[in-house]
Amino acid sequence: MSLLVAGTVCIDTIYTPTVHVENVLGGSCTYFAAAASFHGPVRLVAAVGEDFPLEHHRTLARFKNIDASGLEVRTGSKTFRWGGKYHDNMDRRDSLFTELNVLGEAPPRIPEQFRDSRVVFLANMHPGTQAGILKNLPKHRLVVADTMDFWINGARPELNAVLRQVHGLVLNYDEAELFTGKRNPITAAREILKLGPRFIVVKKGEHGALLIHRDGIGALPAYPAEKVVDPTGAGDTFAGGMMGALAASSATPAQLLGFDNILRALAHGTVIASFNIESFSLDRLKTLKPAELRKRYEAYCRMIRVQDSKTASKPGSPRRTRKASKRR
Amino acid sequence: MSLLVAGTVCIDTIYTPTVHVENVLGGSCTYFAAAASFHGPVRLVAAVGEDFPLEHHRTLARFKNIDASGLEVRTGSKTFRWGGKYHDNMDRRDSLFTELNVLGEAPPRIPEQFRDSRVVFLANMHPGTQAGILKNLPKHRLVVADTMDFWINGARPELNAVLRQVHGLVLNYDEAELFTGKRNPITAAREILKLGPRFIVVKKGEHGALLIHRDGIGALPAYPAEKVVDPTGAGDTFAGGMMGALAASSATPAQLLGFDNILRALAHGTVIASFNIESFSLDRLKTLKPAELRKRYEAYCRMIRVQDSKTASKPGSPRRTRKASKRR
Repeated sequence: MSLLVAGTVCIDTIYTPTVHVENVLGGSCTYFAAAASFHGPVRLVAAVGEDFPLEHHRTLARFKNIDASGLEVRTGSKTFRWGGKYHDNMDRRDSLFTELNVLGEAPPRIPEQFRDSRVVFLANMHPGTQAGILKNLPKHRLVVADTMDFWINGARPELNAVLRQVHGLVLNYDEAELFTGKRNPITAAREILKLGPRFIVVKKGEHGALLIHRDGIGALPAYPAEKVVDPTGAGDTFAGGMMGALAASSATPAQLLGFDNILRALAHGTVIASFNIESFSLDRLKTLKPAELRKRYEAYCRMIRVQDSKTASKPGSPRRTRKASKRR
Repeated sequence: MSLLVAGTVCIDTIYTPTVHVENVLGGSCTYFAAAASFHGPVRLVAAVGEDFPLEHHRTLARFKNIDASGLEVRTGSKTFRWGGKYHDNMDRRDSLFTELNVLGEAPPRIPEQFRDSRVVFLANMHPGTQAGILKNLPKHRLVVADTMDFWINGARPELNAVLRQVHGLVLNYDEAELFTGKRNPITAAREILKLGPRFIVVKKGEHGALLIHRDGIGALPAYPAEKVVDPTGAGDTFAGGMMGALAASSATPAQLLGFDNILRALAHGTVIASFNIESFSLDRLKTLKPAELRKRYEAYCRMIRVQDSKTASKPGSPRRTRKASKRR
């Protein structure tokens, strides 16, 4: 099914404890689309300014499955720019600067040829913008939204309105607590389920992700990565891998939103995110080979596969006597 | 196979953000043995003082599979006492007091009838004591040790000597870093593997556990618990569930230490630990029914089971053209 992502394309400056890079390609749409493109075509909707460098256009063009005809280059505007600095342990960061520029203007236009999109990811934006975009995609069948603390605090009614229209919501561990006042992520996500979605994905960064679905709970560890250069975009590549897998799934309409199908999609998101953090910007994804991705996905599935073999002991089976135990 | 645990039996005073309890039964051996007892018999080796309350003896006796004949009540000595206070988020705690008492004296005696034990868990103790205990268990076939920052910093040569004799080591995330100076837990555990063990289990508390085995890497999330009253003993019940499952396993000698068998044991540890944190001391485990444990184990396996169904998209399979995508 046709997949569309609407969000931001950004120019990033990033400091990690050891290295820093300036003016690299970033943004939720960018990371999402690059990740999703490994599963099939993905339509990108975002706005940049006239200053958006040619080399970044070229980088996007390297991903043959990204349809960037929805990347609006707005005359007289400047591209959204963000600078961030990671703490020593890489799990927290401070924003150094945020120049909204084109983000503070009208939302990106949706090209006519994108209006039949069936699978939609509303990346982190003002929930009012998310709702406006969804209105222009009348054929949507599966919609997932991202959000952040800023909208949870500042645009709650609009966010609640979005939640009534989406099938899934993706958010961070601490955002789930902020949203509901419930410290436990499962309890928090259950509260959010009541507002409309069929499933909530709680991202825990290096500690994996939880799926709180109306039909059950899933828990997946992160891929245990040894090489972490820059975590920027990990959440967006996770979402891209997940939505790409869902869009490419040949599940029946009944299975599409089912627990098993969504959990499998989370696994795909987990694995591609583990590649993205190995380098800055799209540096790793642009050299990633499909066979490498497939191999790591299979390795990841083995890492979490608990076998119920014939050799399994049965917990809670009638207790053996000590005598019986000694015979073994 | 016969399972033995050597470690501490303790009298705990615990403050959580909402409740506190005084003089409750605790200690590594206590939690370990209670958890392991759900899989089969377990022999307990520890020393307490004359002050050890009758009610705590009675609590241990409620677990029919615990053989407490190795609980040495030492005349003229006092029981080890510990007090701790948890921070608001329950993932960190401060020690309020530590009265070593009997722990500062000679190690516990191993009863003659325990000397044929095959599976051994050396709970957190001075590594010199761990080595001395192992020497008195000549028939051991599978030995796993726990340790902590105190011994990593203060008894490194003795700890290294223990590592040359054990098959597995269990330690916390931050202890793995402390041990090796490597921040990444996989990298750290690989370093420790070089010192002798066949596998390392890195515990991450509410974020699960990693298995770094000579034959591969495993990663399991914690059971997503909604009820967390007191995390004390979670690591020891985890180890007890894990070792209990291994001791009860009917795996061939070749399979016993294999990756799949150890990872499955970690899953058993994960699940019983999730019960233990629902209440103080052994309050939850002493009412836990085998059927409840089995049910949650099965639920946990479903939570992490990524299905490779026929509906699965193949990541990295040849890219579809947009036209092909539209046909679906």
